Amino acid sequence: MVVGPEGFDDAAVVRAPNGSLIVQSADFFTPIVDDPYAFGAIAAANALSDLYAMGATPLFALNIVAFPADLLGPEVLSEILQGGADKAAEAGISIVGGHSIDDEEPKYGLVVTGTATEQGLWRNAGAREGDALILTKPLGSGIYTTAIKRQKLGDDGVAEVIAVMSHLNRVAAEVGARFEVHGATDVTGFGLLGHLLELANASDVSLALDFDAIPSLPLALGLAETGVVPGGTRKNLEFVAPHVGFGGALSEAQQLLLADAQTSGGLVLAVAAAQADALLDALHEAGETASSVIGRCQTRGDVPILVG
Amino acid sequence: MVVGPEGFDDAAVVRAPNGSLIVQSADFFTPIVDDPYAFGAIAAANALSDLYAMGATPLFALNIVAFPADLLGPEVLSEILQGGADKAAEAGISIVGGHSIDDEEPKYGLVVTGTATEQGLWRNAGAREGDALILTKPLGSGIYTTAIKRQKLGDDGVAEVIAVMSHLNRVAAEVGARFEVHGATDVTGFGLLGHLLELANASDVSLALDFDAIPSLPLALGLAETGVVPGGTRKNLEFVAPHVGFGGALSEAQQLLLADAQTSGGLVLAVAAAQADALLDALHEAGETASSVIGRCQTRGDVPILVG
Repeated sequence: MVVGPEGFDDAAVVRAPNGSLIVQSADFFTPIVDDPYAFGAIAAANALSDLYAMGATPLFALNIVAFPADLLGPEVLSEILQGGADKAAEAGISIVGGHSIDDEEPKYGLVVTGTATEQGLWRNAGAREGDALILTKPLGSGIYTTAIKRQKLGDDGVAEVIAVMSHLNRVAAEVGARFEVHGATDVTGFGLLGHLLELANASDVSLALDFDAIPSLPLALGLAETGVVPGGTRKNLEFVAPHVGFGGALSEAQQLLLADAQTSGGLVLAVAAAQADALLDALHEAGETASSVIGRCQTRGDVPILVG
Repeated sequence: MVVGPEGFDDAAVVRAPNGSLIVQSADFFTPIVDDPYAFGAIAAANALSDLYAMGATPLFALNIVAFPADLLGPEVLSEILQGGADKAAEAGISIVGGHSIDDEEPKYGLVVTGTATEQGLWRNAGAREGDALILTKPLGSGIYTTAIKRQKLGDDGVAEVIAVMSHLNRVAAEVGARFEVHGATDVTGFGLLGHLLELANASDVSLALDFDAIPSLPLALGLAETGVVPGGTRKNLEFVAPHVGFGGALSEAQQLLLADAQTSGGLVLAVAAAQADALLDALHEAGETASSVIGRCQTRGDVPILVG
């Protein structure tokens, strides 16, 4: 085992008998949007992201399926699987098998297996003082999907968050691999601050973030201000708050946004400062238009994360 | 992809970029026994069996966990995981990660990843006319676990079926690998007849089975005679019956026993006839004492499976 369960990396890394590195992750969850096809695509993009966050190249995947065959028709399952298969195809891989069980509540996701080179592997540990931090997707998917559940989001908002969550981190990872990326993570259930705390601790640096530079979905802050916030996001903030210096001016809603539990969020790439502008330009040119420099790594101090 | 979802093989086989074969399977289910440690061990043995049934060597595994953290204490989950970890250790591998979700009903299993050589790979296709069929575990685990649910099984019976289901197919596979095994499967949800039908069709042979030679748990037939039969077993028999010639003398209970939906059942090895006795002796010597020659492969005829 090279990277195992004791760390907080996004996938497990194992050395095969022939010396090559196998990178693997399993991820699945219950529907967060009503459209079965979109749910399948999001679940697949989310599972694939664990490999992209480590600089790994996916090779193949298995379906993980729980489905109430008696309650929902086979066409619903078929759409979920099609969403997953299409997203896997976009990642350049096939779904070669899997396991399904009868279950009251549907669940779907993938086990993704890939490969990486020793030099190309990105870990939470590895970010260096001076590195710039680039985030590739806007925050707020947890707040938006909670708004969907509470019927407080219009069709445009639904379409926007589906587009963000089903967007594959493949291009961001492939562009990143052409630069000196020292460490990386993706932003998922623990929120931006939770995943950055792991990166800061593993890399023994402190992170200085610029709130105004952090991209978010247009309605996210306003929804948070009216209390549309997932329980997981509140728990994230409670957990991470003792490790974050919020400056004076950040409202509770702004803090919650930074802790928002994401599904299939973006990558955070810690890149050598001298290459930050070039990487950002390359990401924008490749269509990763939300990508932004959100802060930088500095000497480890008393507070792991500072937000200004 | 070398072996994919279109076939009925027990695991997916993919060729890695360096040419080596990666063999992978995911399997998980709800508790079938009350003891959490035993449940974890059985679920792990069951998932590992998919690789042993293909002649593959496991390399590592991920946990798949669904658990009602609010309803059941953390010590229950901890026992399930310990059962899985101990069984993985017996297989010579580590569990290096995984995914868990909150869920009303607990589920547990593994994603197991391994490797195989081209020559050493066992498939459903490959059994040849004249081959002997050796089954390595007794049938009846579905009937026994249904008896547990209906409180019709004593402590001895519970211990016996737990021992059978948590028994790893590792030794059977390793002994088999020293002989000319042409095809193999493990016996799981579709029952002996269901999995043998796949083997018969994939290998284009018919199978002649000797009912009296087929090992089963001591109370299984008696329980089946009193109607203690899982729904899945009845469905299996319904599905497979049109493809099986039962001779005249087999009772419904006997037919149900052959179709009994197994959890973590034994391997069926199709071995060159001249080596059948030697393989059987080797299995017995290695402690696989239930192993029995249950029939043989013959020229494909109108009926894929004949039971005499």
